[in-house]
Amino acid sequence: MSRIVMKFGGTSVADLDCIRNVASRVKRAVEAGSEVAVVVSAMAGVTNQLVAYCQGLSPLHDAREYDAVVATGEQVTTGLLAIALQEAGVEARSWQGWQVPIRTDNAHGKARIAGIEGTELIRRMQSGQVAVVSGFQGIGTDNRITTLGRGGSDTSAVALAAALRADRCDIYTDVDGVYTTDPRIVPNAKKLARISYEEMLELASVGAKVLQTRSVELAMNERVRIQVLSSFADVPGTLVVDEDEIVEKQNVSGIAYSRDDAKITLRRVPDRPGIAAAVFGALSEHNVNVDMIVQNVSADGMTDMTFTVSKADLPRAQATLAGAQAQIGFSEVLADPNVAKISVVGVGMRSHAGVANTMFRALADKAINIQVISTSEIKVSVLVAAEYTELAVRALHTAYGLDAA
Amino acid sequence: MSRIVMKFGGTSVADLDCIRNVASRVKRAVEAGSEVAVVVSAMAGVTNQLVAYCQGLSPLHDAREYDAVVATGEQVTTGLLAIALQEAGVEARSWQGWQVPIRTDNAHGKARIAGIEGTELIRRMQSGQVAVVSGFQGIGTDNRITTLGRGGSDTSAVALAAALRADRCDIYTDVDGVYTTDPRIVPNAKKLARISYEEMLELASVGAKVLQTRSVELAMNERVRIQVLSSFADVPGTLVVDEDEIVEKQNVSGIAYSRDDAKITLRRVPDRPGIAAAVFGALSEHNVNVDMIVQNVSADGMTDMTFTVSKADLPRAQATLAGAQAQIGFSEVLADPNVAKISVVGVGMRSHAGVANTMFRALADKAINIQVISTSEIKVSVLVAAEYTELAVRALHTAYGLDAA
Repeated sequence: MSRIVMKFGGTSVADLDCIRNVASRVKRAVEAGSEVAVVVSAMAGVTNQLVAYCQGLSPLHDAREYDAVVATGEQVTTGLLAIALQEAGVEARSWQGWQVPIRTDNAHGKARIAGIEGTELIRRMQSGQVAVVSGFQGIGTDNRITTLGRGGSDTSAVALAAALRADRCDIYTDVDGVYTTDPRIVPNAKKLARISYEEMLELASVGAKVLQTRSVELAMNERVRIQVLSSFADVPGTLVVDEDEIVEKQNVSGIAYSRDDAKITLRRVPDRPGIAAAVFGALSEHNVNVDMIVQNVSADGMTDMTFTVSKADLPRAQATLAGAQAQIGFSEVLADPNVAKISVVGVGMRSHAGVANTMFRALADKAINIQVISTSEIKVSVLVAAEYTELAVRALHTAYGLDAA
Repeated sequence: MSRIVMKFGGTSVADLDCIRNVASRVKRAVEAGSEVAVVVSAMAGVTNQLVAYCQGLSPLHDAREYDAVVATGEQVTTGLLAIALQEAGVEARSWQGWQVPIRTDNAHGKARIAGIEGTELIRRMQSGQVAVVSGFQGIGTDNRITTLGRGGSDTSAVALAAALRADRCDIYTDVDGVYTTDPRIVPNAKKLARISYEEMLELASVGAKVLQTRSVELAMNERVRIQVLSSFADVPGTLVVDEDEIVEKQNVSGIAYSRDDAKITLRRVPDRPGIAAAVFGALSEHNVNVDMIVQNVSADGMTDMTFTVSKADLPRAQATLAGAQAQIGFSEVLADPNVAKISVVGVGMRSHAGVANTMFRALADKAINIQVISTSEIKVSVLVAAEYTELAVRALHTAYGLDAA
């Protein structure tokens, strides 16, 4: 007897037909002998409407009342899916965060799950009842409804799977799995049968937004096996699992890209201790997140310092640096928003040399200039001019042998 | 320091502008020195949409899940009104049925309130915080959301007023009070400054649907003073209070009418013991509610029996009687849906003779034939042909001196 958590997002429950479709998927899982808990989001568009109401009344609205308002979206879906399941002959019951309970801290609007009481749900699932649980929400220590922040339903599902000791957490989305790269750029990208948590995190952080980053971190910590699959097509998806479960480790599992970054160069910074701390301390104080950083070797006591920030933060970063110019002592700030970050990701590169070199050669063959390089244990990222994004992704996809036969 | 409960229905909170309008009314009450709890319904149209969703998935849907779905309508309004109040500088907090808690039985979809825990709300109201409470809902003993049935928000407000020992329960509606009769029929009908619970119940039961009948019964039992007033116009409303609070008792306070009844006559029924029980027992078994009943004196051991049922029940009543004809032994069933019930209501008629006589004379003067008469302690009702409805109401309104100067 397997026990699974099935999670359906807003587009999968957008209307009554979609909800009936979800009910028949759940029914098939029950008939296949699984104990099932389902986590649902609000029907597509509902949360946006509720957020707009709150904004319309007060731009700086109370987060506790915002949570009370927006949590209703999921509540409606749970009740409707329970009705649809019953209509299909499957015993089912809806559960709100406060009923389970799903306990969180009191950080309204962006709460973190503190613990889930799974005993009663397990008892009912064992007796054949499907538990339909509201994603995205919980209850704080003050007996107030909390929400986990946008996209939090993935995290709800993984946390519930951990609490219920489920064999698997199936996340149904509008894509049918995780691909070696964006199929809109490389039509013969391959769907991965398995990917490790670490790889998934690196891909998510560079723009492959299939799963919420928090949910993958939680799954990794709690050893919850995730399956990403389509709620519309009936095909196998991608398993996100521990590295140990992946037998044939590829050097490179996927190519990711992001156009969300901007490049900043500080010219002729004095090369003395404490300068880096002065630059990045000032940016941090103004809530500017810095990603890639490189510093060239010094000449005549001066150096150039280059780093990336998110495009949204660029104006704030420029203002901050302008204000700190006298104290830090650089000659000028150069800013370039027309860049893309291209990353190759793979747990196999831990044990294989030459991965970075393959990347540099492939880009050189296409005459693509590399502006910045950074590496981590399972990722190599480069910054290139934005106009080369698609060319670079395609070249790397081929260079690492990822093209489908 | 007075303590009041203010209740706003769906049309009063239909959109953000309406909600802001409600917030400013509540603010005025707070600034006038009152401790305030507010009970709200769902935004107009929302409940119908949610009910349609449930119906669309399953005509015979589970009442527990129906309750989970439709209760969200009120939850949204409480959060939004709390935000609007805070934006207006008034401290406020939303409360769902399970948070107060408002305890009910487990009759999902038509639950009855068993008790309300008011201590925490009173504590907060005394410290200056407005409690914004969801109407129409509570929590059953099984930790499931319950709803009180359509229109239940009036009942929520009265029950809350009783639990909070409030000085008054103000019910804001789209009319500005209780009138001596329907102003659409009699343009110079007068708004009543005060009316007793008993009169209000009699008026409600014959078609003046300003307040839900259950809420008036509850107010009478719990001695909660109700004020009916307009959420749009800023004028005094009507107080619904104990008879003792009404100094100048009118013989007749109001004229009500209803076109919802149909008349049934059984011709030549055997005049012997047990016949009435046979007739009305059969109807009761088939859930047909009988209202006015008259039986003529007997001639040659036979009599005619006339009574009214609601128009909606007429086909079922006819079928029931046809099936019982052999057993009861009448000659034929005559049915007439084209009737109207006209009632004069007033606590003063207890101590004044001649009230009925004034009615019969006024109708005779207009040549309106009375088909059936029934009386209670504070009401005289007659059945007339439906085409005379307006004429009869106007004649009686004048005859009892109710026309505005």
